[in-house]
Amino acid sequence: MNESRIKRVIDRLEGTGLHQMLVCDPVSIWYLTGYYTEPFERFLALYLAKRSDGSTVATLFCNRLFPDASGYCPQVVVFSDTDDPLPLVAKLCDHDAPLGVDKDLTARWLLPLMDLGAASRFKLASEAVDGTRSIKDEQERALMREASRINDEAMKWLAAQVREGVTEEEIASGLLAEYQRLGAQDHSFAPIVSFGANAADPHHEPDDTMLHTGDMVLFDVGCKYENYCSDMTRTFFTGEPTEHQLEIYETVRRANEAAEAIIKPGVTFAEIDRTARSIIEQAGYGEYFTHRLGHQIGISEHEPGDVSSSHDEPVQVGQCFSIEPGIYLPGDLGVRIEDLVIVTEDGCEILNHYPHEVCVLLA
Amino acid sequence: MNESRIKRVIDRLEGTGLHQMLVCDPVSIWYLTGYYTEPFERFLALYLAKRSDGSTVATLFCNRLFPDASGYCPQVVVFSDTDDPLPLVAKLCDHDAPLGVDKDLTARWLLPLMDLGAASRFKLASEAVDGTRSIKDEQERALMREASRINDEAMKWLAAQVREGVTEEEIASGLLAEYQRLGAQDHSFAPIVSFGANAADPHHEPDDTMLHTGDMVLFDVGCKYENYCSDMTRTFFTGEPTEHQLEIYETVRRANEAAEAIIKPGVTFAEIDRTARSIIEQAGYGEYFTHRLGHQIGISEHEPGDVSSSHDEPVQVGQCFSIEPGIYLPGDLGVRIEDLVIVTEDGCEILNHYPHEVCVLLA
Repeated sequence: MNESRIKRVIDRLEGTGLHQMLVCDPVSIWYLTGYYTEPFERFLALYLAKRSDGSTVATLFCNRLFPDASGYCPQVVVFSDTDDPLPLVAKLCDHDAPLGVDKDLTARWLLPLMDLGAASRFKLASEAVDGTRSIKDEQERALMREASRINDEAMKWLAAQVREGVTEEEIASGLLAEYQRLGAQDHSFAPIVSFGANAADPHHEPDDTMLHTGDMVLFDVGCKYENYCSDMTRTFFTGEPTEHQLEIYETVRRANEAAEAIIKPGVTFAEIDRTARSIIEQAGYGEYFTHRLGHQIGISEHEPGDVSSSHDEPVQVGQCFSIEPGIYLPGDLGVRIEDLVIVTEDGCEILNHYPHEVCVLLA
Repeated sequence: MNESRIKRVIDRLEGTGLHQMLVCDPVSIWYLTGYYTEPFERFLALYLAKRSDGSTVATLFCNRLFPDASGYCPQVVVFSDTDDPLPLVAKLCDHDAPLGVDKDLTARWLLPLMDLGAASRFKLASEAVDGTRSIKDEQERALMREASRINDEAMKWLAAQVREGVTEEEIASGLLAEYQRLGAQDHSFAPIVSFGANAADPHHEPDDTMLHTGDMVLFDVGCKYENYCSDMTRTFFTGEPTEHQLEIYETVRRANEAAEAIIKPGVTFAEIDRTARSIIEQAGYGEYFTHRLGHQIGISEHEPGDVSSSHDEPVQVGQCFSIEPGIYLPGDLGVRIEDLVIVTEDGCEILNHYPHEVCVLLA
């Protein structure tokens, strides 16, 4: 159990007037206890509370089928597939006080807990955990750096795979072995390899589309290194770039770099989004930048607190997020340039060092 | 949109006194509309209702970032990352009536919907969708058969990979290519390859453990064929089997076959579980069979309505589920034998044909 992280969570929880909470995200449970299992449709939760005598309660609810959790948490409640775990949870809750619940707690468990009267009220309280996870400590920053260093190396490998007639799927399917050769353990998400107009769908899945010289090539990829994620996008040219392609590319590049340049403590996520978005709007492509500018990242590939116009909190030292403007022209092309950054005392550290400059493959 | 499936869902819903429901499981949305996207942390839902004039409402709520859903559903409501979709949902709901919700709807969306007063009450209603999905139609049965036929073929390949010194990870990492060679598209779940004592953890992940002749070898694998899943387990011997190994193996085999033999319409899931469990208990290993006997399966690898002592409904024609008894002796070995079956008018069709008999590799 990581007592200092649990203390930070409980402090944040108390800041919102809550004294008890149910954490369900398996990754958050790992972050707080060191215990990881993927529960699938089974129940897994960590109950955290501060009692009126000042003592802390941390109880992990585990199905008997999960790996043994004893040693990870002072109290572990084990149940079988044929037991209903919710009365066990309700028994531990203070029924006369509100219960904070993880945003990932599903209706399957939440509605019966309500029916059991486990608490006076149920309140979303993930912020207590997510806010704690958002601020990376030194050890975490080092792991984020290494994950992105490997990703930079992997991008060189990806660029080297581009040749006339290769398919998206052929390149994508070889990436895991390259990550592992470089010391990473896994993808942090399914890699996106998009040729030509396929890149106009920001979430295109690699298929048997073949590369024809002249297509732009978009790679959006990330690995996991010691449980921490990287995530980077680069867009390459093949053959002689057209003026149209170059105009789109340079607009996205300027949007990326302008946004990264203004990051420092106190600047809001919304201001960072606005900086990039304005550049794309001024170039006349505003309606083709269809997503938020970025997302936080850490143990999970997407962590809460996005870089968007609706998030007007200031960024804080130790927060790590993506800056990924894009322009998507259906039937034509898609360009995105994405780096990860960590906020520092006086700016930000950009974790990706693979260049932004126009790069023509198959020249 | 699959109107007959939507009608079956609404009929079931009305059977529980509900006239409106929010379906959130992306796989269920695909099953009902043909539209598939993985929303990750974004909101995706299909609102279904029967109005008092007898008309049916089917409205899909999609983030603008998702692939275009028009054509899949008569009404599609599109919103952006910066919009709050929940007032849009609440607007469509009948506030004076209860709302059925998908068990997978997370607190992140459910608690604000409650705060908005979207309905008079919120009730778990996944049964309406899950019960419909549970009964496979002829087209679905044919796909389940083919997915399992490929899995039988893949098991031959797996058995052929076993050699002194090979690692679990080496075998597991080659399986996807074999599935694809056989015509499947993907794994239906991360393959389990366990040597010796590793198999005592039913969910062991393949690692760099090397095979030593004398270890038992457990493969629990499945593929996806045209979106339908297979799932099978076989346990092999290497070298001369010991009496102890054979006793465990034959106990599990008898449990599997006895359970499969009693399946027919009207027999309950609990009775099937009991049949297998009794055999293992009578052999003295009851406490080492730590999980339910099986799970339903179809488009998802695990579908609701498990084969366990707590599920006392009778099985119905067209239901498809696994029969997978096991004995897990920590530090020693693990044995599991799993087939998929489909309930027929007078028994069941066993989808896996790879033999159950003792099979010694590296003899």
